[in-house]
Amino acid sequence: MVLTLGFLGPSGTYTEEACILYDPTAELRPYPTITAVGEAVASGDLVEGVVPIENSLEGSVTFTLDLLISQPNLFIKGEVVVPIVHYLMAKPGTVASEVKVIYSHPQALAQCRQYLEKNYPQADQMASLSTVLAVSDSFASPVPAAAIAPRRASELNEVDVIDISIQDVESNVTRFAVLSLADHAPTGHDKTSMAFTFEVDTPGSLYRALREFGTRDINLYKIESRPTKQYLGQYIFLMDCAGHREESPMKDALAALSQPTSMLRVLGSYPRWYPKS
Amino acid sequence: MVLTLGFLGPSGTYTEEACILYDPTAELRPYPTITAVGEAVASGDLVEGVVPIENSLEGSVTFTLDLLISQPNLFIKGEVVVPIVHYLMAKPGTVASEVKVIYSHPQALAQCRQYLEKNYPQADQMASLSTVLAVSDSFASPVPAAAIAPRRASELNEVDVIDISIQDVESNVTRFAVLSLADHAPTGHDKTSMAFTFEVDTPGSLYRALREFGTRDINLYKIESRPTKQYLGQYIFLMDCAGHREESPMKDALAALSQPTSMLRVLGSYPRWYPKS
Repeated sequence: MVLTLGFLGPSGTYTEEACILYDPTAELRPYPTITAVGEAVASGDLVEGVVPIENSLEGSVTFTLDLLISQPNLFIKGEVVVPIVHYLMAKPGTVASEVKVIYSHPQALAQCRQYLEKNYPQADQMASLSTVLAVSDSFASPVPAAAIAPRRASELNEVDVIDISIQDVESNVTRFAVLSLADHAPTGHDKTSMAFTFEVDTPGSLYRALREFGTRDINLYKIESRPTKQYLGQYIFLMDCAGHREESPMKDALAALSQPTSMLRVLGSYPRWYPKS
Repeated sequence: MVLTLGFLGPSGTYTEEACILYDPTAELRPYPTITAVGEAVASGDLVEGVVPIENSLEGSVTFTLDLLISQPNLFIKGEVVVPIVHYLMAKPGTVASEVKVIYSHPQALAQCRQYLEKNYPQADQMASLSTVLAVSDSFASPVPAAAIAPRRASELNEVDVIDISIQDVESNVTRFAVLSLADHAPTGHDKTSMAFTFEVDTPGSLYRALREFGTRDINLYKIESRPTKQYLGQYIFLMDCAGHREESPMKDALAALSQPTSMLRVLGSYPRWYPKS
């Protein structure tokens, strides 16, 4: 049976690239918002949905984390890490040296600033709502135009690729989460994502929480504090650690963590992403 | 003597609002990029410069943190926290019910999504390079148009304000850093920002580092891990804590922290921001 995989659309985005890396045989179904993907999974319309969770151009991670925290029946079942590689592309026949306007999402334009200053100092930069819409915006331009967009957009549109990998910083990646009604069974190379708060942020609250992981030699991949929306100065802590919630020592650390925290939500245990070569 | 305050321009941005809150008498000088503000301060052209450091629409915090980490003579001397309040504005005489296009930075459009769906379902959303440029984009529109922009933009342009505070989420704030060649003298209500890494990320590294703060009853305001650009899987930790680096117990915690870390950069001690009422 072919899996139907929902994702934050439109087609041609980095999220679609993530879906193809996750399951090349899946049937892909774009949704207009992160919330729409989450609702389709929560209601059972979709078994799995892919949304950006860190560092994306296409939408803020805030939506995804808020969705996971507010929808306790949604879990992270997997992750996909996609390198962000910007392509410069244009309508077939466009002469690169004559390009007068370059379209993209403002964040993508910012990520290629040095490249554009050096190679296209004469071109105006114009904002598009997404890197994918930048392609159609450039097609509609009355003067010679180009677009900064993902490689995938050059496969879905008839374009000339003018240049590849034009971003100023090499190590730009986006992490995507696969949402489902259950997380993943243990595989031996897992990570666990969690969110927690303290009733009162006393000095040392976080230190005491981390002690449960540090003394058990559990590796920490990521930690982040975010202000809660209710009270300024109160925080939600988000942590990714090595191990599966059903296996020791992670299982014991989570049991111990439920004591000092006022809210503890395990967002899911799932296999750690390794690039497929 | 009037202070000249550099800031990430253009005029009309939230960064300019931050400058006015920080020093209403200062002469303001816009710079095109965060890097340009940093270089002007580092070279002595400017005594102080204001740049976004967290949650901004106008540019990524990454630039500011990378700048601070790579320029060891730059320090954070102060902070300003500005609530993000989006205004809907248009060319004078525009009839709200006839608006066909709404311009803004894609992130601002996303932050007002529910409002726009409810009140302007018929209007097309168009991307602008910044919330400020959205105003001129809407002026140039051949059909009735409006712009989502900061209050300050409504003072700098002749516009009709159609609606105020249209963002879907109330508690959206941006934090700005005041950069200088030295940080601030102790005031009694200070915070200290720091960045550190470990030679090897062993399980428990961060826990042992936090112990130096937790056991000294030093309150933690913010913590964040970011991948270093050199090696995937190695992290820079960014932390804001209560207290001044020249005063105990912060001074002792920082001395102890230099042991387990391979890099420790105190980005500055400065007065904690309290809203002026």
